[in-house]
Amino acid sequence: MSKIRLGIVGYGNLGRGVEKAISQNPDMELVAVFTRRSPESIDTNATAVSMADIESYKGKIDVMLLCGGSATDLEKQGPEISKHFNTVDSFDTHAKIPEYFEMVDSSAKEGGNTSLISTGWDPGLFSLNRLLGECVLPEGDEYTFWGKGVSQGHSDAIRRISGVKRGVQYTVPSEDALSTVRAGEKLDISATDRHERVCYIVLEEGADAASIEKEIVTMPNYFADYKTTVNFISEEEFQSEHTGMPHGGSVFRQGRTGEGTSQVIEFKLNLGSNPEFTSSVLVACARAVNRFASEGRVGALTVFDIPYAYLSPKSGAELRKELL
Amino acid sequence: MSKIRLGIVGYGNLGRGVEKAISQNPDMELVAVFTRRSPESIDTNATAVSMADIESYKGKIDVMLLCGGSATDLEKQGPEISKHFNTVDSFDTHAKIPEYFEMVDSSAKEGGNTSLISTGWDPGLFSLNRLLGECVLPEGDEYTFWGKGVSQGHSDAIRRISGVKRGVQYTVPSEDALSTVRAGEKLDISATDRHERVCYIVLEEGADAASIEKEIVTMPNYFADYKTTVNFISEEEFQSEHTGMPHGGSVFRQGRTGEGTSQVIEFKLNLGSNPEFTSSVLVACARAVNRFASEGRVGALTVFDIPYAYLSPKSGAELRKELL
Repeated sequence: MSKIRLGIVGYGNLGRGVEKAISQNPDMELVAVFTRRSPESIDTNATAVSMADIESYKGKIDVMLLCGGSATDLEKQGPEISKHFNTVDSFDTHAKIPEYFEMVDSSAKEGGNTSLISTGWDPGLFSLNRLLGECVLPEGDEYTFWGKGVSQGHSDAIRRISGVKRGVQYTVPSEDALSTVRAGEKLDISATDRHERVCYIVLEEGADAASIEKEIVTMPNYFADYKTTVNFISEEEFQSEHTGMPHGGSVFRQGRTGEGTSQVIEFKLNLGSNPEFTSSVLVACARAVNRFASEGRVGALTVFDIPYAYLSPKSGAELRKELL
Repeated sequence: MSKIRLGIVGYGNLGRGVEKAISQNPDMELVAVFTRRSPESIDTNATAVSMADIESYKGKIDVMLLCGGSATDLEKQGPEISKHFNTVDSFDTHAKIPEYFEMVDSSAKEGGNTSLISTGWDPGLFSLNRLLGECVLPEGDEYTFWGKGVSQGHSDAIRRISGVKRGVQYTVPSEDALSTVRAGEKLDISATDRHERVCYIVLEEGADAASIEKEIVTMPNYFADYKTTVNFISEEEFQSEHTGMPHGGSVFRQGRTGEGTSQVIEFKLNLGSNPEFTSSVLVACARAVNRFASEGRVGALTVFDIPYAYLSPKSGAELRKELL
């Protein structure tokens, strides 16, 4: 069987993760990485190609994995590239998803292509589990917790403070809140009390720890409403313990069946690397897109439209025998 | 929009659970319950009908939910009823699933019907998560834990012991093993060491607790290889604490991405009632079967073939806006 031929558009954390994930899937091959930078400057084992030449790859690539950011890149690239290629992306600006879907749907139909938008883990696997929860347990409540994980926005906010040399912020779900939800009990605390914020900071020489801590814990929107802990550490400790990009979280459905019987579904992720995991989801989804495309289905899709069998290289008979 | 018209075949724990679950879904209605017993003897709010008359309901029922047991009922009923109706069942004899699929597939095709086999939570939601895990994280290990939950076979075994008035056995996953797997570490203990067995027993008047305990913990196959705890309790405590049918468990995928980064996916169920939850899954799946049938797809299907959107009464646009 011929391999699924893939292209990567954009070579940041996500693009590099996709390159690694493709190498774990023997039924796939990476044809080229497309970049707006100079192709020679890209440190990849694959062929690096200028974005300007992307259309010359029509017919040579089965699915393009769009690895740019939602805000800056995807809003433009999704509609453009889906005119020429089947695509997968991780568009994650929740409020704009319906509008983005319509744009990509119309481009993909124009080009006769299949485009899966907004996959990854949230949106993506978490969305699937929210949907499953409300379908199986229609009477019930949904809770999502994020973390422990690095929040890029909050980390940026603490790094902007004068005197902070390096800094990272972890969003940590409250253990009490998690236990309450896991036990099927109602959670009566506000959304801000469900998560804590934990900061690790390396100070500039001579900076005043007490005033920086105060500036952080009182920062409106970012920290003031949350239980916030600030830890000052050495540069060595920061380098060895806090340069990864862990993340994760849990989606819960608490339902009631029959005469008030408690039923709890939890889907939990504990991710050593947020971008590498997202990349792995994108690559599995590329297999589904390739299959939809080969069946002649055109237009935009989401994870809600994918039968899990389409994510797998195995046949239906193999799946029934091995995994059901 | 007209409601999805459902029928229930078999009115045990599962059938009763399905009746309750249907009442939680406003887009569905229960047309009739089919039974081999005398229809008058069935304590249901729905119309009870003799199994002998089932074919007279052709055209009046969109999907039949088969609620019999795998060993005794489904092997015969699945192939028979799928000739005349779209069906959903929870066939769970893992080793026989491929053969059962072929039989139902052939009958359903003969009748022009759609039949979803082997749904529920295991097989069912657990199977979906095993598949998702290996697709997203192809380099990794899968672990399934069951419990805390009532094992019917083990409960029967202890109730056969002379001197035992009432008895129930819970399968309980080892907390140490769960912690190891959750942390992404390799689990080096055998399958029997991953679960403990906890028994609650009400003795007959004058029965000897010590000899009964010894008989249980040394019982070959059932208990001898496991860490087993036997608790003797009063009939009142048994009645108030141990007559439910709780169950659950976790499916884990421990994967490695990039240069050995640990990634852990966990799907966990904590079920107050095993049959009521299974029933709720069957009912959500009936919606998917009805949709497949309306699209003209005939033959047997499994959960691997269902896009989650098909489980929901909501439109694609609603799902994208509310849940993605």
